[in-house]
Amino acid sequence: MVDVSRKRVSVRVACAEAFVRMNPAARTALRAATLPKGDALVAAQVAGIMAAKQTAALIPLTHPLPLDRVDVRFQWQRDLLRVEAEARTSARTGVEMEAMVGASIAALTIYDMTKALDKGITIESVKLVRKSGGKSGRWTRK
Amino acid sequence: MVDVSRKRVSVRVACAEAFVRMNPAARTALRAATLPKGDALVAAQVAGIMAAKQTAALIPLTHPLPLDRVDVRFQWQRDLLRVEAEARTSARTGVEMEAMVGASIAALTIYDMTKALDKGITIESVKLVRKSGGKSGRWTRK
Amino acid sequence: MVDVSRKRVSVRVACAEAFVRMNPAARTALRAATLPKGDALVAAQVAGIMAAKQTAALIPLTHPLPLDRVDVRFQWQRDLLRVEAEARTSARTGVEMEAMVGASIAALTIYDMTKALDKGITIESVKLVRKSGGKSGRWTRK
Amino acid sequence: MVDVSRKRVSVRVACAEAFVRMNPAARTALRAATLPKGDALVAAQVAGIMAAKQTAALIPLTHPLPLDRVDVRFQWQRDLLRVEAEARTSARTGVEMEAMVGASIAALTIYDMTKALDKGITIESVKLVRKSGGKSGRWTRK
Amino acid sequence: MVDVSRKRVSVRVACAEAFVRMNPAARTALRAATLPKGDALVAAQVAGIMAAKQTAALIPLTHPLPLDRVDVRFQWQRDLLRVEAEARTSARTGVEMEAMVGASIAALTIYDMTKALDKGITIESVKLVRKSGGKSGRWTRK
Amino acid sequence: MVDVSRKRVSVRVACAEAFVRMNPAARTALRAATLPKGDALVAAQVAGIMAAKQTAALIPLTHPLPLDRVDVRFQWQRDLLRVEAEARTSARTGVEMEAMVGASIAALTIYDMTKALDKGITIESVKLVRKSGGKSGRWTRK
Repeated sequence: MVDVSRKRVSVRVACAEAFVRMNPAARTALRAATLPKGDALVAAQVAGIMAAKQTAALIPLTHPLPLDRVDVRFQWQRDLLRVEAEARTSARTGVEMEAMVGASIAALTIYDMTKALDKGITIESVKLVRKSGGKSGRWTRK
Repeated sequence: MVDVSRKRVSVRVACAEAFVRMNPAARTALRAATLPKGDALVAAQVAGIMAAKQTAALIPLTHPLPLDRVDVRFQWQRDLLRVEAEARTSARTGVEMEAMVGASIAALTIYDMTKALDKGITIESVKLVRKSGGKSGRWTRK
Repeated sequence: MVDVSRKRVSVRVACAEAFVRMNPAARTALRAATLPKGDALVAAQVAGIMAAKQTAALIPLTHPLPLDRVDVRFQWQRDLLRVEAEARTSARTGVEMEAMVGASIAALTIYDMTKALDKGITIESVKLVRKSGGKSGRWTRK
Repeated sequence: MVDVSRKRVSVRVACAEAFVRMNPAARTALRAATLPKGDALVAAQVAGIMAAKQTAALIPLTHPLPLDRVDVRFQWQRDLLRVEAEARTSARTGVEMEAMVGASIAALTIYDMTKALDKGITIESVKLVRKSGGKSGRWTRK
Repeated sequence: MVDVSRKRVSVRVACAEAFVRMNPAARTALRAATLPKGDALVAAQVAGIMAAKQTAALIPLTHPLPLDRVDVRFQWQRDLLRVEAEARTSARTGVEMEAMVGASIAALTIYDMTKALDKGITIESVKLVRKSGGKSGRWTRK
Repeated sequence: MVDVSRKRVSVRVACAEAFVRMNPAARTALRAATLPKGDALVAAQVAGIMAAKQTAALIPLTHPLPLDRVDVRFQWQRDLLRVEAEARTSARTGVEMEAMVGASIAALTIYDMTKALDKGITIESVKLVRKSGGKSGRWTRK
């Protein structure tokens, strides 16, 4: 694990996204919140936030951090469901992994709650969208 | 959570995959195991296996299950690193989510250990490859 | 921890309840789902189910068990919000604690999401409602 | 999750209580520490402290925090066992939920260790007793 | 992780031990239960049992298992405190690691609660004492 | 739990060690990395680091802390495998337990991955080697 004890405490923010591709039946059920397993988007939001808080327990070399905020949001982009996760801390190291884990687990929860309707659901393109704070400053994906 | 108490105990297997796309610098470092954070593939394998075992703590409506086996493997396909995770149980419900979580967290660990070389790494196409066992029997992705 | 290795595997069910008493402002916000923290009932349901699955990690002498089902439901009884949690397993010991933990954490999540409107919220009367399965058979609270 | 990055770090304390009502047989056993499961009060104290430290993993929208102290104490008030949990942090947000979770899980552990003597045990009136620190300052339950 | 799906379910028991060597001041405090941190032996017993239940989350290639029983006991052997942990399951694989983890974490908890009196405390000779069940049958340390 | 709210935040470091004694067959396999379970040393390093981060969830009265760094290293000393774990924080209390837990779980993982070759493996002499930071300053084992 990288030693961060000499880094400066600063506000650090990271935002990641993932896309869930599913068939029309799953999409319709998700949009209408008529899934037998209940309101999947809220459940996925909760799961993503809780997982982001468990990042240090999941990714071996990450630092356990206090977090000032984690949020997970959803947006339909035509047939794809976009999942966005944002994490924020006041700490000595960044929160990219918290955002990436939050987006991934939220997407996996969507998968779990709709897989009865479409076994072939794919989670596409999990990636960092932007980050700020720390020595390297602001970065935005081109 | 779906009630599985009347389902039959059977051997159930699921296999999922994910792909990690990174720039040449990250790829070279990963292949040469010269990363400052150490042997990323073994660490990612361990992280994927351990996360698969935490599936019930991460995905809200999954059932806590004994697991007979979890494995995570890597394979280079030209410029993409393929991550494959397989889970196996003797239980009343399947282990798709264990396989999906294992592949995702292994891929995220690769991301964490190479992101200093490439902030733009993308995890692509996380999906179920095949499953067997239970009432619905064998399914293979086309 | 009591040795259950000689007990018989049977289907065991337990149901517990808790009541949340809050002021009219909190009640109105909860009913209208207009809380700044989002849809509190779904979040509390997810939290209760996930906590029930963590029972063996929370209550020292409980047995780690596979679970066939956990459910959490809400119902308004005049000014009180009733939380009901049900757990089900096919195992050598019962799931009273899973139901009790599920109801408690769901109620505590309601508290967390409404406490900005009412610091004085009280969780009342957390208790077992009924259980079945195992040597002692069916029990219903009088 | 509420963004607390602009809040000031201050010492924050919260104290919560719960009451356990049980029949004379359970009470006698608990007082005499003659339970087959061992010294229930110490076990419940440990369980309450450990659960308070897991608050961010249990309650969806709470912030993971360093904790300066958690304590759990017991007191007989006639036939009721009073459980008191206190949490303390130097952070940007309060520790009400840590105190509430600590009191609840300690009470549930008492329940688990005495339920063989009284299935009807009830946990009554889990609530915040006082808090201090942060913008809203000191609050004491009337 | 070794595939155990073709192994037979049988009752499997494992017992491990550890020894804690400390100076007279720590020993006296521990025996008199006059430690400022409270009754260390009961806390260590609870910690050992709870850690044994977390074995699959701690040791990478262990199988998550239902457990029929975990117990932790202490015994003074002159100046050494002997910690013994026993685990029992009805499963397809053994519980050596559950016993080893239980004994280790119980011993580490003793260390934590007495280290103010003796920084030099040593945990000695953590090892398997005996096991039974499964294909390899009964094994006792010579 | 000791109240640390009035202690000063300072950089605190602790280093612990453990020794694993095994038979020649296990030693040879470990050195040649030819174990059926894979590269045991990297897996044990990852397990030790991840466990150190879980210290507050394992040892009842420890404080949850941000960690600036955890590292686990191995070294052969003739027939013994020495495991060294170092933890570092900027906090109000020390990280002795993080180092002790990291060394113990890394050693137990070695045990798990070689026990098929030697049931009699012993973990010897888990102890603190040095610490620095905080009021009591630097301490080195004699």
